[in-house]
Amino acid sequence: MGNTELNSLNLAEIGSFFSGGKIVTLAGQPARKVQVARNAEARLVDLNGDYVTGQIYVQYVRQVQPKCNSPIMFWHGGAMTGVTWETTPDGRPGWQMYFLRRGFDTYVCDAVERGRAGWSPYPEIYDTAPIFRTRNEAWELFRFGKSDHYSSDADPSQGYEGLKFPLNSLDLFCSQFVPRWTDHASITLEAYYSALEKIGPVWLVAHSQGGNFALEAVAKRPDLFLGVVVVEPASAPDKLGLANQVPHLFVWGDYIDRSVTWQGYRKQVDQYVAELKGTGGNVKVIDLPKLGIYGNSHVPMMDTNSDEVAHHIYHWIQSCMSC
Amino acid sequence: MGNTELNSLNLAEIGSFFSGGKIVTLAGQPARKVQVARNAEARLVDLNGDYVTGQIYVQYVRQVQPKCNSPIMFWHGGAMTGVTWETTPDGRPGWQMYFLRRGFDTYVCDAVERGRAGWSPYPEIYDTAPIFRTRNEAWELFRFGKSDHYSSDADPSQGYEGLKFPLNSLDLFCSQFVPRWTDHASITLEAYYSALEKIGPVWLVAHSQGGNFALEAVAKRPDLFLGVVVVEPASAPDKLGLANQVPHLFVWGDYIDRSVTWQGYRKQVDQYVAELKGTGGNVKVIDLPKLGIYGNSHVPMMDTNSDEVAHHIYHWIQSCMSC
Repeated sequence: MGNTELNSLNLAEIGSFFSGGKIVTLAGQPARKVQVARNAEARLVDLNGDYVTGQIYVQYVRQVQPKCNSPIMFWHGGAMTGVTWETTPDGRPGWQMYFLRRGFDTYVCDAVERGRAGWSPYPEIYDTAPIFRTRNEAWELFRFGKSDHYSSDADPSQGYEGLKFPLNSLDLFCSQFVPRWTDHASITLEAYYSALEKIGPVWLVAHSQGGNFALEAVAKRPDLFLGVVVVEPASAPDKLGLANQVPHLFVWGDYIDRSVTWQGYRKQVDQYVAELKGTGGNVKVIDLPKLGIYGNSHVPMMDTNSDEVAHHIYHWIQSCMSC
Repeated sequence: MGNTELNSLNLAEIGSFFSGGKIVTLAGQPARKVQVARNAEARLVDLNGDYVTGQIYVQYVRQVQPKCNSPIMFWHGGAMTGVTWETTPDGRPGWQMYFLRRGFDTYVCDAVERGRAGWSPYPEIYDTAPIFRTRNEAWELFRFGKSDHYSSDADPSQGYEGLKFPLNSLDLFCSQFVPRWTDHASITLEAYYSALEKIGPVWLVAHSQGGNFALEAVAKRPDLFLGVVVVEPASAPDKLGLANQVPHLFVWGDYIDRSVTWQGYRKQVDQYVAELKGTGGNVKVIDLPKLGIYGNSHVPMMDTNSDEVAHHIYHWIQSCMSC
């Protein structure tokens, strides 16, 4: 669980708030017969009433003397929560701590329906059903190893040669997974905007699905962002009035050539980057293997060299910022 | 969202971990036809694979120089998460901050299936379906006002006279709600024990359903607790080898005489208290109205006098502790 670090944090407050969402009233719903307790008859459950739905959860940590008035906000990827940015599965400080120790205020979000943001009954409020991530899917999708090298014992020796993800802690990583809905992009973005309107423009660090959201958000609401770091974005939105005044940093790990899925996402993102550059945008791409940094998975914030990757992001932010 | 406080926190680390749970493998499940995207055909979803299920999430904050080697752990109630202990719905620092400012390390938990702990497919892994909390139910169950004074506009003037819950922030409070399963007490307790075995004995502050869990836990595993504060416990377990060596504090708010549900819970808990005292247990009951403190709801950690209630808990812990 990590040892006490030498340099302490001098903090003003740790706290949280919800943002976005609305009241939805269910009325006239027939009572649903639900198996509520294991050893009891199914009973009728009345879903009728008022719900808050569509909110996000934001946890903030504020410095007594922030290095800069511009905080860092973190958006997680699909089937994940804000835990992405906390302690790594093998117990090292994560990127939230990295940037706290460098004097930034941090805002870590749980998107609509994920983690502490809660979720609403379906099909009564959400139109659709959730999907779930298995450890098998994670093995392949997070580029830990070849899919046919996965077995139920998840033998760490079967990962890619040189892999920097701590496969001995794979089950603690999979403990982070939460179900996800595939059609909540709009309500999630609306809730993110509402939070940003409260706290002012931020440096955004976004991962995977969150990176895709980030590209859309910064194009539509450039006023809310000082810069955006998209780490391993799961594809890019269609071109939509590119936000060329906001600096963009893209960060990619290793083994992309082993994954058809990631080759496809990468191709779309590379096209997006080219268009952004074509409009005169301030764009940098860090392809870690091209810097001689090999072995990073889809979750570089959890890989054993997570601090090294964070350094690159930190230096890019420093190079962009005036404070 | 709360202003910067005058006295700063000198912290060593903020982090988190998961504890408990196990791998469950789904095999031979027929593909499920799921409406995954709003404007698309339902598609077949394959649930087969390996899942981590039954884990809890624990977020810790560690002082550079803790007042005492004994941290405070927080367990939330039904349909809630660790957010219970963070910033109040109207933006004041909550009990986590209260105890951090007094030098304790804190451990805030999300129980199995709640918040960042994630949840598993049902009926494939969980046997049963979840239930949901409406704002209507909260109005009555949290003792904000008479049920027939609730309407969809949730008019704050309709709450109980003298109520200290910030009803103007009711929707931000309801933003905290998460679905819950009614038959997960055993797996939740096992996961709590596993976390406690890692960090050593704690002062536990538990709310509502979490208070019921706490009474069972401290009776079965007294070695894991220095003392237990049960705030508005939702009933008590049957007598089960009462843990008379561990100090117990019970805290009750106001308006219990207005609620048949809470009269019932209170009666069971009072019986439990009597039995505990009968075995020579160190038991204190704080009935806030009997101290002249009126207007507290079922969530005193969010009421406008939340710090005053916390003071009573703090002083009780101090009176019990040797460090």
